[in-house]
Amino acid sequence: MLLVLNGPNLNRLGLREPGVYGALTLEDLERQCETWGAELGDSVTCRQSNFEGQLLEWVQEAQEQGFGGIIINPGALTHYSYALRDAIAGQQLPVVEVHISNVDAREEFRHKSVTASVCKGKISGMGFLGYRFAMEYLTESQG
Amino acid sequence: MLLVLNGPNLNRLGLREPGVYGALTLEDLERQCETWGAELGDSVTCRQSNFEGQLLEWVQEAQEQGFGGIIINPGALTHYSYALRDAIAGQQLPVVEVHISNVDAREEFRHKSVTASVCKGKISGMGFLGYRFAMEYLTESQG
Amino acid sequence: MLLVLNGPNLNRLGLREPGVYGALTLEDLERQCETWGAELGDSVTCRQSNFEGQLLEWVQEAQEQGFGGIIINPGALTHYSYALRDAIAGQQLPVVEVHISNVDAREEFRHKSVTASVCKGKISGMGFLGYRFAMEYLTESQG
Amino acid sequence: MLLVLNGPNLNRLGLREPGVYGALTLEDLERQCETWGAELGDSVTCRQSNFEGQLLEWVQEAQEQGFGGIIINPGALTHYSYALRDAIAGQQLPVVEVHISNVDAREEFRHKSVTASVCKGKISGMGFLGYRFAMEYLTESQG
Amino acid sequence: MLLVLNGPNLNRLGLREPGVYGALTLEDLERQCETWGAELGDSVTCRQSNFEGQLLEWVQEAQEQGFGGIIINPGALTHYSYALRDAIAGQQLPVVEVHISNVDAREEFRHKSVTASVCKGKISGMGFLGYRFAMEYLTESQG
Amino acid sequence: MLLVLNGPNLNRLGLREPGVYGALTLEDLERQCETWGAELGDSVTCRQSNFEGQLLEWVQEAQEQGFGGIIINPGALTHYSYALRDAIAGQQLPVVEVHISNVDAREEFRHKSVTASVCKGKISGMGFLGYRFAMEYLTESQG
Amino acid sequence: MLLVLNGPNLNRLGLREPGVYGALTLEDLERQCETWGAELGDSVTCRQSNFEGQLLEWVQEAQEQGFGGIIINPGALTHYSYALRDAIAGQQLPVVEVHISNVDAREEFRHKSVTASVCKGKISGMGFLGYRFAMEYLTESQG
Amino acid sequence: MLLVLNGPNLNRLGLREPGVYGALTLEDLERQCETWGAELGDSVTCRQSNFEGQLLEWVQEAQEQGFGGIIINPGALTHYSYALRDAIAGQQLPVVEVHISNVDAREEFRHKSVTASVCKGKISGMGFLGYRFAMEYLTESQG
Amino acid sequence: MLLVLNGPNLNRLGLREPGVYGALTLEDLERQCETWGAELGDSVTCRQSNFEGQLLEWVQEAQEQGFGGIIINPGALTHYSYALRDAIAGQQLPVVEVHISNVDAREEFRHKSVTASVCKGKISGMGFLGYRFAMEYLTESQG
Amino acid sequence: MLLVLNGPNLNRLGLREPGVYGALTLEDLERQCETWGAELGDSVTCRQSNFEGQLLEWVQEAQEQGFGGIIINPGALTHYSYALRDAIAGQQLPVVEVHISNVDAREEFRHKSVTASVCKGKISGMGFLGYRFAMEYLTESQG
Amino acid sequence: MLLVLNGPNLNRLGLREPGVYGALTLEDLERQCETWGAELGDSVTCRQSNFEGQLLEWVQEAQEQGFGGIIINPGALTHYSYALRDAIAGQQLPVVEVHISNVDAREEFRHKSVTASVCKGKISGMGFLGYRFAMEYLTESQG
Amino acid sequence: MLLVLNGPNLNRLGLREPGVYGALTLEDLERQCETWGAELGDSVTCRQSNFEGQLLEWVQEAQEQGFGGIIINPGALTHYSYALRDAIAGQQLPVVEVHISNVDAREEFRHKSVTASVCKGKISGMGFLGYRFAMEYLTESQG
Repeated sequence: MLLVLNGPNLNRLGLREPGVYGALTLEDLERQCETWGAELGDSVTCRQSNFEGQLLEWVQEAQEQGFGGIIINPGALTHYSYALRDAIAGQQLPVVEVHISNVDAREEFRHKSVTASVCKGKISGMGFLGYRFAMEYLTESQG
Repeated sequence: MLLVLNGPNLNRLGLREPGVYGALTLEDLERQCETWGAELGDSVTCRQSNFEGQLLEWVQEAQEQGFGGIIINPGALTHYSYALRDAIAGQQLPVVEVHISNVDAREEFRHKSVTASVCKGKISGMGFLGYRFAMEYLTESQG
Repeated sequence: MLLVLNGPNLNRLGLREPGVYGALTLEDLERQCETWGAELGDSVTCRQSNFEGQLLEWVQEAQEQGFGGIIINPGALTHYSYALRDAIAGQQLPVVEVHISNVDAREEFRHKSVTASVCKGKISGMGFLGYRFAMEYLTESQG
Repeated sequence: MLLVLNGPNLNRLGLREPGVYGALTLEDLERQCETWGAELGDSVTCRQSNFEGQLLEWVQEAQEQGFGGIIINPGALTHYSYALRDAIAGQQLPVVEVHISNVDAREEFRHKSVTASVCKGKISGMGFLGYRFAMEYLTESQG
Repeated sequence: MLLVLNGPNLNRLGLREPGVYGALTLEDLERQCETWGAELGDSVTCRQSNFEGQLLEWVQEAQEQGFGGIIINPGALTHYSYALRDAIAGQQLPVVEVHISNVDAREEFRHKSVTASVCKGKISGMGFLGYRFAMEYLTESQG
Repeated sequence: MLLVLNGPNLNRLGLREPGVYGALTLEDLERQCETWGAELGDSVTCRQSNFEGQLLEWVQEAQEQGFGGIIINPGALTHYSYALRDAIAGQQLPVVEVHISNVDAREEFRHKSVTASVCKGKISGMGFLGYRFAMEYLTESQG
Repeated sequence: MLLVLNGPNLNRLGLREPGVYGALTLEDLERQCETWGAELGDSVTCRQSNFEGQLLEWVQEAQEQGFGGIIINPGALTHYSYALRDAIAGQQLPVVEVHISNVDAREEFRHKSVTASVCKGKISGMGFLGYRFAMEYLTESQG
Repeated sequence: MLLVLNGPNLNRLGLREPGVYGALTLEDLERQCETWGAELGDSVTCRQSNFEGQLLEWVQEAQEQGFGGIIINPGALTHYSYALRDAIAGQQLPVVEVHISNVDAREEFRHKSVTASVCKGKISGMGFLGYRFAMEYLTESQG
Repeated sequence: MLLVLNGPNLNRLGLREPGVYGALTLEDLERQCETWGAELGDSVTCRQSNFEGQLLEWVQEAQEQGFGGIIINPGALTHYSYALRDAIAGQQLPVVEVHISNVDAREEFRHKSVTASVCKGKISGMGFLGYRFAMEYLTESQG
Repeated sequence: MLLVLNGPNLNRLGLREPGVYGALTLEDLERQCETWGAELGDSVTCRQSNFEGQLLEWVQEAQEQGFGGIIINPGALTHYSYALRDAIAGQQLPVVEVHISNVDAREEFRHKSVTASVCKGKISGMGFLGYRFAMEYLTESQG
Repeated sequence: MLLVLNGPNLNRLGLREPGVYGALTLEDLERQCETWGAELGDSVTCRQSNFEGQLLEWVQEAQEQGFGGIIINPGALTHYSYALRDAIAGQQLPVVEVHISNVDAREEFRHKSVTASVCKGKISGMGFLGYRFAMEYLTESQG
Repeated sequence: MLLVLNGPNLNRLGLREPGVYGALTLEDLERQCETWGAELGDSVTCRQSNFEGQLLEWVQEAQEQGFGGIIINPGALTHYSYALRDAIAGQQLPVVEVHISNVDAREEFRHKSVTASVCKGKISGMGFLGYRFAMEYLTESQG
């Protein structure tokens, strides 16, 4: 059972900067993730919040709620939320960080991630497919 | 129809560091803005939150709610909230950033704004008048 | 009457990185603080939140609620929350910053505190005792 | 009586980078300022120079010449002229710094102002309206 | 037809720091990639070199040789080879950068990639699976 | 048995910058520490030196001399004495770093401590009470 | 018709640091440039000023005065005059920046040019020949 | 007899980023240089390599092979190859560094040259003409 | 025969920030310097300009005009005028840099001097006496 | 009564780097200072130490010993001894910092003084005369 | 059996900058190393390459080829070749880094070594003797 | 006759961090050095101090005391003692800097040496053998 978390502004997918993020919406993404989960034989729960505090509580509680892994796109919190970083570090589920766009090809401030060092790894620039890859990784490599 | 957003600690106006911010309260400021809006022939809605997540949702939803422009004083979030920055960049209304005090004459950390680059411009040090100027700008220059 | 505030992830005490933070829980800590308060002849109220906005509102309102001092462990917000810093600076109660672990001996990002400069002082690495020391300081030195 | 000072290259307004600065000329701007002055019941004197030395002498002498406030757009001198900064700091009239474009959204070197810290405040990105706002501020807030 | 390029020291996979990179060898990786290619209905060619010059020539020539996309793990060249960066930027095939380990969780110098900004995206920390994800991405998204 | 070490300029307590450090002298501080030691049921030895070399030798020899813990206020050596740092790291007694004033609220150079990372923790801004807290910590937490 | 501009201290050529700049004077240089112009079938006008304001006005007015290109050696203004930079950027003639000595082999501050980014290119270390090359470039490449 | 060396990716001239480098190929450039050599009464040998090691060996051996000067466009090696720098510094022929595009107007990393300080000078942004200017310089100024 | 040069804003001495610079005027200073010159048996010429270009021309021409040494207070130009630096370096008279206030105890930007490295030395914080000391030095040490 | 303090390595004057410091010895310098003191009608006491601790104790005790001012050449301690800085700041006598050579024209590390900000001012590059100027300043300006 | 590797430009020993490196050639050095090896009772193999790729392959293969330790002078690759660093880190033989000249006394860029952290240690400034010391160390300490 | 100087904390060898420095004591090291001296036909004097002032006086006086070279392990003073640096620079004996551990593989602050630039060279990571190598160097290379 996987938990897919999307952070600030990802509720605006499809509406916000479609040149960068594409025309599909958060709902499309979440449906897509559920479908991929089904294909991988695993159930997927998707949540989104614009609140740092909410996101980190979801991370804190994931294991107790029975999840086996977390896919997180922290949005811009990636670049400064040491609180989110500590929440990830402070639990035991494997976490994969995903960014839809290629953050290394954008503004300087997007090159630094304070959360990636406590995740298993990071996938960026792969569009929605990044979420599927993260799901595959959690399913396959974690056995 | 204009939206005036005040961020963290601006609910303490008049109570907090009056030497820096003056003795008038947030309520005084909001009444003042409404009066100015009336003078400009435009209605004004004022909101304040100490939560980054709340502020960025107000920014996200402003256009759908029929607003034509946003005046925002993000308080200290100005200096680090890339999430708020992305919310502003990810919608189409013109936004003006306002600071009551002259941030360039204060602590080093206040000199940097991560939000101003995605606004139309920035007004600082003009006291409450900064809000009126932003309202005039949005009314006049946007036609 | 003292207010003890704990920030992001401190609700995971005992569960999270016990090698760093020990095996006792937040509830243990809060009980301990109440006991110490009783010994010092002062009542203690303990609160925890993972939301920056909530923490800063508690700081803003403490004086009106009759508290005489604040002990705060802002968790990772210490390192970037200028909004919390402004909330502390914008009220008049004495505040003491506490960290359970020795932040200077951990990751580079933990060496910098943006909140300590507006507190009375900072105590780190003393475990739960740091809270008691802060309470003693507020009781004795403020007399 | 207000003094409007424009620095290096502002004599090229309308000719230079119209995409950034618009198609109106310095003469248009100065006429506009005089009109606004008349509306505010105050007379306005406009001057432009490409010489740092000339600008700072105008600042030095403004009070003796009977001006009650200064609006200054120092052009690129904003970013390095500590001499101009000292001239502003060394006299007693209120000064407002104005930039036609949104300097925070342009090249890195334009983000830093060495003059703003000794002004009352800074207005950027509001086009010509920035000058009017500065005039209003000087008229209203200074009584 | 996909080209998989591995850079300096990846010929030592399985022999070098197995705690970081696992016990499988470069040959295992290349066989694995070919198998995955077959599953994706695409042929895969794998090459490795410890010479910056060789790697960039393979990048330069890939399109003429009929490849439709490149998966590259530049090894440590990632961190300083602007020449390799220019080779990637100077051709038109989509390129995905892959790192076996989670570079953000290792030494500071590994956090910076000079090549990622001219790739489609970057995958790190996923082990060998990172290569498969890159292959899937190139196959599916390039359609 | 505890060792209290005070570094450069602390022999001037009460004489030097009383606005920052208070009006009590080093002798007052040392008497106070002895009294607190007695209350804690532990004996206390106090020493002061303006010489880096002397301070680090006292640290080196403390264990052999039968002390069970060290309270050290290294004065300004805190900010650059890597030699003192190595002395602390090179012995086994628990050490607590104490600063009378809130170093984080003073000059930039006082924000960095090169010694704290090898101590158990740091207490600053608590006045003389900081020494008592350090003594309590060493007595209680060390068993 | 080409305009050759020399900035601060170039009126001291031949007199100043002959080990670095050679023994020929500004007059020699200007004669040389005129001769080269004649050889290239183009007329050349040479000017020198030690005043930033004068240099930038010459740049501003060059096109209206009928020049087809500018060769500029801004002297030390190269390293800090953003005002000169803006003057170059704000007109349409092609500009070539020339330095007689090899600035990259001298003091650190000479390595950075704030003007070169808005010129067509930069030639340094070629002695007087640098001016001829710039003239040839403007004549040939601009057609 | 002059040696013209072109570094990494210059074999892709005309194919790579024609908007930046033009549509002519390396072969065109080399033919052009030979023609210019003939006009200057000097023979020219042109070589290109994508290997740092090869380029620096050509530099090392040039004098023994009878060349009288070197024109080098090190491509991106300019920005980090201290080994190439040492090769240039370690021989006695005059060397001129050439860049086809205006490196100061491109990415930040291209502003720094580690090789220019040991060359006679640097020419950038002049297109192919930069090579001719370097050849003229070596022929004329070296006598 | 000595030349005393005062730079930007020193014509405002006595009028500008008397808390920092004292109540005496530039005329007082110049009279004082002439008197001191008479006492030292040397004539003194005093000049002031707010124009960088004028100051550097005075430096350039001093030797030809028969001066034997220069005392210069470049005002804020000290901190960025590499052009003035080059003018000083490019002539042979001994130059002493003087600042009335203690620049090291003021704003950060005043700590750096780009001109002092090419002077004989620097005197700061001695008030007007700094000029006399510079005159004595030039008279005595230069023989 | 004035106190002249010389720090580390100044006991080697005349012996050490005579190209930089001249051929006269510390004894010569101290005799010279005493003679100058006599001329100024003030007695002078000269001390030298290579120990930071000794120097700062002399500074601490100077006022009690009846001195009216201190001239200090801290040698290389200038660049890092915050302890010496605190000793100067923690007493009330006026202090002038002197350096024999022009520190701004030497190695980078000599450009920064951590002690000058708490002195009255700094004199560098004037040779032994710097001491006399400091003595004159203390005698005259302090009345 | 020891492997001595020399990197870029060391084939020019004796020919290149003899003031820095002495007049002996690479051949002399290699003969010398073989002699020293004989004296130490160990055989020595010497190789030199100007290619980063070649050097790192020699490092990779050394253990399989029966060597017991490596002495490496990476030349300028020391300062930027993270690929070479990884090759050293990725094998198990002890490696000693040697530099003929005192790199700390030369250009700033030579002060940083990216390879030394994965070697046993570093010897610089000892001339050819540095190689012998490295050989002795490998022979004796690995014993 | 050679002088071996050991700085702060080296009197704790064998007692302090044996994992880093080994189990042998300072006395063992000094005996070892004397033995090696005898083997080299040279006498050796060993001294240790924890006082910067003492170490630099030993350096100052070494030549007069008849020593022919100095081996110095300045301990942590290496990283900040510009006073020790000046003492070494201010005398004429050859000095070799030695560190027992591989400083480049430890904390960041240990990577920088302020003393090495004025020594003949630096040896690190070779354990006690580093001292012998330094002795051999001084004996052999100095003739």
